[in-house]
Amino acid sequence: MRRAGRHFLQIPGPSAVPERILHAISRQTIDHRGPEFAKVGQRALSGIKTIFKTEQPVIIYPSSGTGGWEAALVNTLSPGDRVLMFETGHFATLWKKIADKLGLKPEFIEGDWRGGADPDAIEAHLAADKGHEIKAVCVVHNETSTGSVSPIAAIRKAIDAAGHPALFMVDTISGLASLDYRHDEWGVDVTVSGSQKGLMLPPGLSFNAISEKALAAHKSATLQRSYWDWAEMLGPNKTGYFPYTPGTNLLYGLNEAIDMLHEEGLDNVFARHARHGKAARAAVRAWGLEVLCATQGQESGVLTAVLMPEGHSADQFRATTLEHFDISLGNGLSKVADRVFRIGHLGDFNDLMLIATLAGVEMGLTKAGVPHNAGGVAAAMEVLDTTQAMHIAAE
Amino acid sequence: MRRAGRHFLQIPGPSAVPERILHAISRQTIDHRGPEFAKVGQRALSGIKTIFKTEQPVIIYPSSGTGGWEAALVNTLSPGDRVLMFETGHFATLWKKIADKLGLKPEFIEGDWRGGADPDAIEAHLAADKGHEIKAVCVVHNETSTGSVSPIAAIRKAIDAAGHPALFMVDTISGLASLDYRHDEWGVDVTVSGSQKGLMLPPGLSFNAISEKALAAHKSATLQRSYWDWAEMLGPNKTGYFPYTPGTNLLYGLNEAIDMLHEEGLDNVFARHARHGKAARAAVRAWGLEVLCATQGQESGVLTAVLMPEGHSADQFRATTLEHFDISLGNGLSKVADRVFRIGHLGDFNDLMLIATLAGVEMGLTKAGVPHNAGGVAAAMEVLDTTQAMHIAAE
Amino acid sequence: MRRAGRHFLQIPGPSAVPERILHAISRQTIDHRGPEFAKVGQRALSGIKTIFKTEQPVIIYPSSGTGGWEAALVNTLSPGDRVLMFETGHFATLWKKIADKLGLKPEFIEGDWRGGADPDAIEAHLAADKGHEIKAVCVVHNETSTGSVSPIAAIRKAIDAAGHPALFMVDTISGLASLDYRHDEWGVDVTVSGSQKGLMLPPGLSFNAISEKALAAHKSATLQRSYWDWAEMLGPNKTGYFPYTPGTNLLYGLNEAIDMLHEEGLDNVFARHARHGKAARAAVRAWGLEVLCATQGQESGVLTAVLMPEGHSADQFRATTLEHFDISLGNGLSKVADRVFRIGHLGDFNDLMLIATLAGVEMGLTKAGVPHNAGGVAAAMEVLDTTQAMHIAAE
Amino acid sequence: MRRAGRHFLQIPGPSAVPERILHAISRQTIDHRGPEFAKVGQRALSGIKTIFKTEQPVIIYPSSGTGGWEAALVNTLSPGDRVLMFETGHFATLWKKIADKLGLKPEFIEGDWRGGADPDAIEAHLAADKGHEIKAVCVVHNETSTGSVSPIAAIRKAIDAAGHPALFMVDTISGLASLDYRHDEWGVDVTVSGSQKGLMLPPGLSFNAISEKALAAHKSATLQRSYWDWAEMLGPNKTGYFPYTPGTNLLYGLNEAIDMLHEEGLDNVFARHARHGKAARAAVRAWGLEVLCATQGQESGVLTAVLMPEGHSADQFRATTLEHFDISLGNGLSKVADRVFRIGHLGDFNDLMLIATLAGVEMGLTKAGVPHNAGGVAAAMEVLDTTQAMHIAAE
Repeated sequence: MRRAGRHFLQIPGPSAVPERILHAISRQTIDHRGPEFAKVGQRALSGIKTIFKTEQPVIIYPSSGTGGWEAALVNTLSPGDRVLMFETGHFATLWKKIADKLGLKPEFIEGDWRGGADPDAIEAHLAADKGHEIKAVCVVHNETSTGSVSPIAAIRKAIDAAGHPALFMVDTISGLASLDYRHDEWGVDVTVSGSQKGLMLPPGLSFNAISEKALAAHKSATLQRSYWDWAEMLGPNKTGYFPYTPGTNLLYGLNEAIDMLHEEGLDNVFARHARHGKAARAAVRAWGLEVLCATQGQESGVLTAVLMPEGHSADQFRATTLEHFDISLGNGLSKVADRVFRIGHLGDFNDLMLIATLAGVEMGLTKAGVPHNAGGVAAAMEVLDTTQAMHIAAE
Repeated sequence: MRRAGRHFLQIPGPSAVPERILHAISRQTIDHRGPEFAKVGQRALSGIKTIFKTEQPVIIYPSSGTGGWEAALVNTLSPGDRVLMFETGHFATLWKKIADKLGLKPEFIEGDWRGGADPDAIEAHLAADKGHEIKAVCVVHNETSTGSVSPIAAIRKAIDAAGHPALFMVDTISGLASLDYRHDEWGVDVTVSGSQKGLMLPPGLSFNAISEKALAAHKSATLQRSYWDWAEMLGPNKTGYFPYTPGTNLLYGLNEAIDMLHEEGLDNVFARHARHGKAARAAVRAWGLEVLCATQGQESGVLTAVLMPEGHSADQFRATTLEHFDISLGNGLSKVADRVFRIGHLGDFNDLMLIATLAGVEMGLTKAGVPHNAGGVAAAMEVLDTTQAMHIAAE
Repeated sequence: MRRAGRHFLQIPGPSAVPERILHAISRQTIDHRGPEFAKVGQRALSGIKTIFKTEQPVIIYPSSGTGGWEAALVNTLSPGDRVLMFETGHFATLWKKIADKLGLKPEFIEGDWRGGADPDAIEAHLAADKGHEIKAVCVVHNETSTGSVSPIAAIRKAIDAAGHPALFMVDTISGLASLDYRHDEWGVDVTVSGSQKGLMLPPGLSFNAISEKALAAHKSATLQRSYWDWAEMLGPNKTGYFPYTPGTNLLYGLNEAIDMLHEEGLDNVFARHARHGKAARAAVRAWGLEVLCATQGQESGVLTAVLMPEGHSADQFRATTLEHFDISLGNGLSKVADRVFRIGHLGDFNDLMLIATLAGVEMGLTKAGVPHNAGGVAAAMEVLDTTQAMHIAAE
Repeated sequence: MRRAGRHFLQIPGPSAVPERILHAISRQTIDHRGPEFAKVGQRALSGIKTIFKTEQPVIIYPSSGTGGWEAALVNTLSPGDRVLMFETGHFATLWKKIADKLGLKPEFIEGDWRGGADPDAIEAHLAADKGHEIKAVCVVHNETSTGSVSPIAAIRKAIDAAGHPALFMVDTISGLASLDYRHDEWGVDVTVSGSQKGLMLPPGLSFNAISEKALAAHKSATLQRSYWDWAEMLGPNKTGYFPYTPGTNLLYGLNEAIDMLHEEGLDNVFARHARHGKAARAAVRAWGLEVLCATQGQESGVLTAVLMPEGHSADQFRATTLEHFDISLGNGLSKVADRVFRIGHLGDFNDLMLIATLAGVEMGLTKAGVPHNAGGVAAAMEVLDTTQAMHIAAE
């Protein structure tokens, strides 16, 4: 039976793609070596810098974000290099596994999945590395599995406080264009991101924003690389071209997305996500449930992960909610599998879509027989009502 | 500034067009006299009969619904003919004005805009017309300006009880494919409809479903006609063609819409609209506001018109709501201008979209300083929760 | 079996719709009474004037071009009015039949279908009407059934030379935005057009460009009218709105089309059509076939109608060509049914598409066993080669 | 200035994307971990096997074809492994360079770029490798830089005749779904392909069809790999899922493409490409120019590379042709840079598009002052006329 109305894609990415971008990606493909393409490529390559807030090169790969992780490592490191990583959650763990597979020696600072990476722990770990054998510090900015945000600027300061020369690599795959991010100002050497979150595109593009220092490291790094090789990219990119066939249609969409973000204003985009996160957490608390992120100030505006009451399956709840209310929620991953569900509130999103989303959760909790208090939607409406003014002031 | 997220188009038509239909109407136009077109035309002309529930011809015009009204009159009547019409609201009044302009003599049974047409009044009026000078009875099925539904089957019986031979013409422009409708079973002679409501298409097509009796009347009717002439249509329609260039791309969309309605099941479509109407009215009552339709059992599943508290402007409220929550609500028309606003809940619509819509109204009332009780959204969620089972049973 | 590649829609309208317009018409429908619509409406209503080259109002109907014909007549004339029309071909004859149906008294100057309307004949006819009983002169600018163009400016002069006050009405349904046209400068009172030809849109919009004199006539004209009533349109149009639901999605497309025409430059658009017409006629002559338009200087840049050799069916040839080469050619209509085929070379079209089209005809002639000389395509290439320079100079 | 009409994208890939596929890729993105996705994924993963003609797994990467090359190597080989490659042209050379970068030891049989790989040379080379140190033979099926086709079945026999156990890897990035290809029957161990050629999709997907033997080699291969790791893919693929975010929207397009290919019939697709190649070569010969592929029976149906007369720049010719006729032709690469241009005639393509393409070349040669004979288009029309019957018989 056909389901009427729009599906609510409320996983923390891919986010629902707006009509303008769907139209952009369905324009006819052009010759990626012809003069018209140069304009498309140059616009994308320069435009994406304004989103990463960098004056330095940003590499665009036809790949998913996972490829961006690999690219960051193979371009800057050599077999056996020690790298410091922080267990913010599932995706930090996946990145660490890739480091393992590539022959690096990741050192993993354990975390409880309830907050961002801890600058003090990183500083202490680096300070102990007198010989500066650690070559890179890798942190996830917005941990998509938990809804916690790592304090990137503070971690930069921690590295500096330790006087450590390691490269600083940040994954903001699910944070970019939703949360404040400043590649240059925060002194990040490689920032990894992807297309299907705050950029509102379908999956299929990944990014490496890189620093001078990262480029220098690239020259001596010996990990095997070909598809991901920055050096191959940087030459043709200067004139808007790519060394191999680029994802032309997604680049059309990227250019549209960059325009849309600037039409709204990046600060407005960030304020919108923050406000929706606040409203979502108010709903969760009203239901009497617990937000997974337990560190005040590190709750994400991109998604809210919610702990299920003991004895109830998050996955059964999600299945019930999908069946009855045509809304996709994110599942709990690895350590919190079936224990949490995640509410995405990112990308091309607004107040009424948030209320619809939270209503789907609230009615789904009822339908699935999960004990909770009513009133989550009402609590979120209250937050939206009282914070609206600030949002408008931000315009 | 760009507004993020989807606009909520909650006027009682046009309704939001689903992606499948937008894709259908953007297929390349073809030769409307070539063999491939015949398949498109035949599929549309036979498919639309299943929506009107008729075995008789349905005429498809490239025009808006207003054209369908004119077509019904000019094809069946002659200058000076008396026609009986019922003032259900603004649209019934507009149809009456067209009858005036065309040189007919409409007799207009006054109504208070708070319910559908009254079978008893119609029967009495017809019974008084001993000479059978009244040539047609014209009734609006779903009065889009008030959210009231006229009892078409009962009106048929009333006409029969009066023993009157007048043609029975029904406007279900905003009711078709949302409310139960049975052209043949209910003995309607001409049913008028349009594309941009329950059919989920953009505006641009109108329909006349016609009976044998209407066709017979057509032969002697002398009102001037050309574009609207059924006789010109019926010939080429037999093989799937049209006498002049049809709205090819909207016909692509119509075929998709008919498929989608049957994939959901017409009875499910009707049950969904009824349930959403019930939930919307529960919200209105919880706010302490009044539903314009005051006749129990005649409240529409397509839209809910709401009376504003005295001293408050419905149009200011709608403007505030549009500005803050990016939702379009319907305005009050003529007699109830600025006194009511209308919530559309028709077409490609689901539970979470309804909650979003009602949240827009509730937060808008607050934002606009309109006195009301909170809890409308919660009341609607309660209705959705308790009626869900029935809906599923209906599948 | 699926046919690979693009279909060639080479009938003289609808013309193939470009991607930009298909995307425009598939944007989400909006509230036609909301503030955003006013921008869409105003842009369309003012933009279309630049295409008709008029400072006066242009009415936009949701209807096919046939409706525009009717609108021109019912808005300006009264029952029994005499109108002078000229038999340029099938479409002039259809317009005359509408005049008949509407109760007018058309006087039809016979033509041989091999040229445009004759100014001298019109002048003579008007001069004989001493009592000025003829209320309108109706001429088809680009006769789509024959590929002949009437000299509108000369006909204006002929009317003036006869000192006759009749309204001057022109159908340029298939000429607008392909051939030079000047509503104001040429003193036309009502110009009728449609969306699916030079405007590159799907069918579904028709136009009436009107003069002050036509508006004055409108006030006293008594032909019955409602849907087509200019007076109803002109009020709301002032602020970008319409009296009944407009064809919103086609208006999106219209705005895009107007932009595209100005991006190319109207003079370039006209030069392109003229050049393609010249090349097409060169091909026809090389094949040893005859162009239907026999009046030098009146051959259309929109289409070329070709006479079949005696004893050969144009329709069989077209069917063969469609089957083998996936190209739709226009059929011969009424008097020349099965005797001519028509090659459309209008709208969003370029040199290589023309060669493909002519190759389809040439290979189709062979396949259908129609006697002809080879070399039509080569002759057209020669014309394109030698006229290219002028085209570029026109930029 | 806007250019009217369709651009002709006649490079040998990306090929022009048909409307059905553009619509498919612009459908809303869905949850790649939800139940609806499983259907999309399973349909793609099983459907693509019918195109490679294999019963074994096909891996689908979100990447361009270059990634597919790397994947084939890193999944099956270990550092320092010897691999035998054949210099069919530029793309074979690029693949060899990747092997170098990845730390393999490619042995490159030189070729003159005027034919496919030579089975005899391969057999001799393998026979000389008594110790079976060569681990893989890598051949390009359709060499996109030259328009030559390697005889894959014969090379399989050559490997067998040498009694050599090396893996057989084939790049048919530009050949798949245009030329006959049989992964299983021809005993290929890894076949690499991409989305933007015969599959008619935008770039962004690459493929590895793999054999049991390749999978066995995979288990002991030690080249570093993560993103490309088959093992990670094969598990989730069983139920239609992927280990990381897949290119969801391109998968929609892939499913549509597979349907379209089967609706036409793969044999018809192959016959169509062969016929168009034959017609294109007839045109080249008529112009008095030389086809780059000099090996009879190995000319490609995908593209035709043409040698420029001495003293004339192929790139200037291409620029002139693009400017005047809005057609993109492929450039000469590395060894033949500026010496050849390439005419793509692949993908969603038909007779009239081919004629348009060849007319663009012929008129471009004139415009660019390149000495040639007229009549190429005519010669191609002659071939199309005389071969049409066979094509129809093939249906």
